[in-house]
Amino acid sequence: MKPVKQMNIKTGMDVKDLVKEMSGSGVFGAGRIAQAADILKSMKSDKDCKIFLGVAGAMVPGGMKGIIIDMLKNGYAHVFVTTGANLTHDLIEALGFEHYQGNCQADDKELHKKGIDRIYETFMPNKVYEDLEKFFNKNFDKLKGETSIKEFLWKLGSLLEKDSILKTCYDKKIPIFCPGIADSGIGLMMWGHLAKGEKVEVKAFEDLKEIMDLAWTAKRTGVIYVGGGVPKNYIQQSMQLTKGATYGIQVTMDRPEPGGSSGAELREGISWGKLNDKAKHVNVICDATIALPLVYSAVK
Amino acid sequence: MKPVKQMNIKTGMDVKDLVKEMSGSGVFGAGRIAQAADILKSMKSDKDCKIFLGVAGAMVPGGMKGIIIDMLKNGYAHVFVTTGANLTHDLIEALGFEHYQGNCQADDKELHKKGIDRIYETFMPNKVYEDLEKFFNKNFDKLKGETSIKEFLWKLGSLLEKDSILKTCYDKKIPIFCPGIADSGIGLMMWGHLAKGEKVEVKAFEDLKEIMDLAWTAKRTGVIYVGGGVPKNYIQQSMQLTKGATYGIQVTMDRPEPGGSSGAELREGISWGKLNDKAKHVNVICDATIALPLVYSAVK
Amino acid sequence: MKPVKQMNIKTGMDVKDLVKEMSGSGVFGAGRIAQAADILKSMKSDKDCKIFLGVAGAMVPGGMKGIIIDMLKNGYAHVFVTTGANLTHDLIEALGFEHYQGNCQADDKELHKKGIDRIYETFMPNKVYEDLEKFFNKNFDKLKGETSIKEFLWKLGSLLEKDSILKTCYDKKIPIFCPGIADSGIGLMMWGHLAKGEKVEVKAFEDLKEIMDLAWTAKRTGVIYVGGGVPKNYIQQSMQLTKGATYGIQVTMDRPEPGGSSGAELREGISWGKLNDKAKHVNVICDATIALPLVYSAVK
Amino acid sequence: MKPVKQMNIKTGMDVKDLVKEMSGSGVFGAGRIAQAADILKSMKSDKDCKIFLGVAGAMVPGGMKGIIIDMLKNGYAHVFVTTGANLTHDLIEALGFEHYQGNCQADDKELHKKGIDRIYETFMPNKVYEDLEKFFNKNFDKLKGETSIKEFLWKLGSLLEKDSILKTCYDKKIPIFCPGIADSGIGLMMWGHLAKGEKVEVKAFEDLKEIMDLAWTAKRTGVIYVGGGVPKNYIQQSMQLTKGATYGIQVTMDRPEPGGSSGAELREGISWGKLNDKAKHVNVICDATIALPLVYSAVK
Repeated sequence: MKPVKQMNIKTGMDVKDLVKEMSGSGVFGAGRIAQAADILKSMKSDKDCKIFLGVAGAMVPGGMKGIIIDMLKNGYAHVFVTTGANLTHDLIEALGFEHYQGNCQADDKELHKKGIDRIYETFMPNKVYEDLEKFFNKNFDKLKGETSIKEFLWKLGSLLEKDSILKTCYDKKIPIFCPGIADSGIGLMMWGHLAKGEKVEVKAFEDLKEIMDLAWTAKRTGVIYVGGGVPKNYIQQSMQLTKGATYGIQVTMDRPEPGGSSGAELREGISWGKLNDKAKHVNVICDATIALPLVYSAVK
Repeated sequence: MKPVKQMNIKTGMDVKDLVKEMSGSGVFGAGRIAQAADILKSMKSDKDCKIFLGVAGAMVPGGMKGIIIDMLKNGYAHVFVTTGANLTHDLIEALGFEHYQGNCQADDKELHKKGIDRIYETFMPNKVYEDLEKFFNKNFDKLKGETSIKEFLWKLGSLLEKDSILKTCYDKKIPIFCPGIADSGIGLMMWGHLAKGEKVEVKAFEDLKEIMDLAWTAKRTGVIYVGGGVPKNYIQQSMQLTKGATYGIQVTMDRPEPGGSSGAELREGISWGKLNDKAKHVNVICDATIALPLVYSAVK
Repeated sequence: MKPVKQMNIKTGMDVKDLVKEMSGSGVFGAGRIAQAADILKSMKSDKDCKIFLGVAGAMVPGGMKGIIIDMLKNGYAHVFVTTGANLTHDLIEALGFEHYQGNCQADDKELHKKGIDRIYETFMPNKVYEDLEKFFNKNFDKLKGETSIKEFLWKLGSLLEKDSILKTCYDKKIPIFCPGIADSGIGLMMWGHLAKGEKVEVKAFEDLKEIMDLAWTAKRTGVIYVGGGVPKNYIQQSMQLTKGATYGIQVTMDRPEPGGSSGAELREGISWGKLNDKAKHVNVICDATIALPLVYSAVK
Repeated sequence: MKPVKQMNIKTGMDVKDLVKEMSGSGVFGAGRIAQAADILKSMKSDKDCKIFLGVAGAMVPGGMKGIIIDMLKNGYAHVFVTTGANLTHDLIEALGFEHYQGNCQADDKELHKKGIDRIYETFMPNKVYEDLEKFFNKNFDKLKGETSIKEFLWKLGSLLEKDSILKTCYDKKIPIFCPGIADSGIGLMMWGHLAKGEKVEVKAFEDLKEIMDLAWTAKRTGVIYVGGGVPKNYIQQSMQLTKGATYGIQVTMDRPEPGGSSGAELREGISWGKLNDKAKHVNVICDATIALPLVYSAVK
């Protein structure tokens, strides 16, 4: 048995050293942060490992967009799955808008009068939707065709000039999946055209071919789940016919006890064959906006 | 100010009386259960109210299928949104399989060897997938066509003989939406055919027309969120262009602080116009398998 | 393996039947509620079982006082441990004051101006402290002597006329422990006299003799933890030198992962010998104001 | 309104810079970590501020002892309140024992056979109690006298040679309070002597004089709550008769909704007068073993 080494904080220490101290302590949240850093390092340095990154939760309004883009650009994610909401917020920033530091105790009635949408502690002016609409009106013909959701999203990315998740995935040809895309501001924009009787032929099931192939053809896989939801589950299901992921990191505040996939511990995936029974894996029970920057800056 | 009335438990009391006692006490979880029952009653008895029920989390493996079907049959849900996982588990039971009472401390490696998939405390034999496959092979031609996800799911429902969520929605013509359908066992089955080069033309955005219309044309709306995820968010977005829901109930164990939609308090929706600022609404912080039966049996 | 039986809700059903349906379903929160009811029944009907009930959290302001008194009167608790706060709120009600249904979104600054103390969603007029003071001034001589905390609390109970936890424990000679009594409004009242230079000789460690004896001399023991904190831990420690509790129920919303005793799963106690390795035990992850009334009314 | 600045992670960045990036982002958990660092800095540099540090939860087994000692030595805590458990684990390490990195999936029955006590993911050999007993046998005469709990704990600290929380508080004459001391391994040791008929005269209420005076005489106060429980509540109550704390930091994973003090948001204290209505304060929803090292190393 390895003793718990009481952590030692030095003035001006860098993040790598802080996480090393956490690793010495080895237990509870601190120990898990250290394990996550260690596993992230391992999957990154394993040349035969394809990394599937799933991101749910309001990570763009939460200030994590830069880190996600950085991970995509630097080989920490070879396949990316996220929610329509994150892509909508990414697109909104790519079109020149910003999110604002808000307040979760604000009077929502007053905010509504002022045209401000609240995302917990983040504010967003509702008028972003007008510019979104203009953007979709201008580009609708390029987006409506018979295609997969991934191709639809790459097309979106190809239309952007500002650095963004969508543009990065397109530029670097990183497969980006979002099965629930209709459930988002982007969906609303497409609905605007459907409502006028226009045709949209983006296909719901088409991407399955690609994500299943990506998982199947990988020598080894690593999975990173920031939040749960569809992004986690969609990657999990792509692992089901493989020998299971070799590396796994999950960061979530959701509890396992109510039984849903979002809070389920990674080891549950072993029963399904989604996680290899010899996998290095860790469940970090932490707000992702704390854990992700901490772990990533300890490894980068 | 109304005093907190200390709850009084009588031998053999019925659920209505228990929840009435909770209402007297009026605070914390008990008070919220009572409020939820009251709001459910209100939205049900409001003839001009269209009820949108969103269900996420492993509610079929968690034993809630019967209640959901009951709610659908008895006018507690006029529009239904759920996850692909719940529909897959519903389909599995409709094809004659069962889920089993399991154990969250089980050895997942052993389960894997025995071909048992674990969903927290529920077990499912992995061989259900073989029969699912047969079912989809037999019916693929009926399912692959150019259609919306809702029509796809109604078609699925029309093929079933056993009582189920899918069949109930089809039989009663209750619109059933599942934007993330590709992310499910049902998705996997369709992939089996895609992988063989067959064509599937189910459209990703098509349903938006119908759900937005359903919200728009309702005189008043009520929203019930059992869990968060895509089902909640998809209903929320359909409310955005209306005057906001008049009634709202949310049951979840997710926290608001990490910022995601699943844990967000309903009042946040007021800023967006998704919830009317005069709406009766309540956030019940409780495992849905406890709160849903309790609230529903207090009202039915 | 036992199948998950989908729950079936009938109009007008009583709580026993509801919990029976939960037992059939058998998993997640519902299954645990049913197990808790079953274990409570078992420990109550086991004539050789001494039941230790620990109650933390604002259970009196939360409307649970009546249930606690009922449990004490009806043999569901032979030893009682709680926080100073609960006893203070119990005393306040025994002196004729009430708590009020409040609102967790209230402006705390405004409440402060109005002399209202907030306990999440419960309000309490701050002026209760004046009457508390009068009560302690009047009775100080009876309370200050060289005694254990239990004797101090029984003396308090003997001075009350209205039904209350304190009076019930005194009347029925139920040992009542509260190691952290100084940390409470009752403590503040005693401080008022200490500050004037008066002597108070209540002893900090004295009760250990009695609680350790109570555990040691029991043929079998059952533990019920409503919330964690000192009440749980103090009972746990009394079990450490026995063969471990035979029955265990824990109701809490605290998580196990941060490592504290409050959220720790009961099975952890097996390693310490606090829980017998053959014990029937269950962790109910639920707001106690929902779970306690539900479980108790299913058994009473 | 201040825009959310997407965080930017640089290779080799130090913790101060990481937390500065979190401050730019400004929302959710990251924003709160940054606020906590800012508030900690403010209260430390305010020469008229007396800092009350309350620590609950298994912080010594969790590897936080070093940080707590460091904070005590460097002026980040002028008054210290904790649980008996933490002091017992501190004493155990001071006597030469260690805690070990364990595993929360371990078989508790097997651990029990091996004499290993589990604290979530930390292991402790049960035989530490034998040496504790020897220590108390040797020093009992010095510890049993008519005194306050604080004096009792300082006496304990005076007997230790190894660096520890107890020794630091004694050496630096930092008032250390632990109202629930009987609820701990230290309590068990004192019980060993009580059981033999020896007399112990440590007084339960005595410390109230000192902690109330410490709060009352401070020009300004800052409160830091690592976990809730008695340590938080005891400090809160000492603030009740002052003008309220000027600075407040709370780190906990407990939820506010069940109504208990541990999870209650700091702003609730404004209604009671425990927190000044102009106080800088923040609730960090995070495992303390992650948040405390992160915040402290950003400030030290």
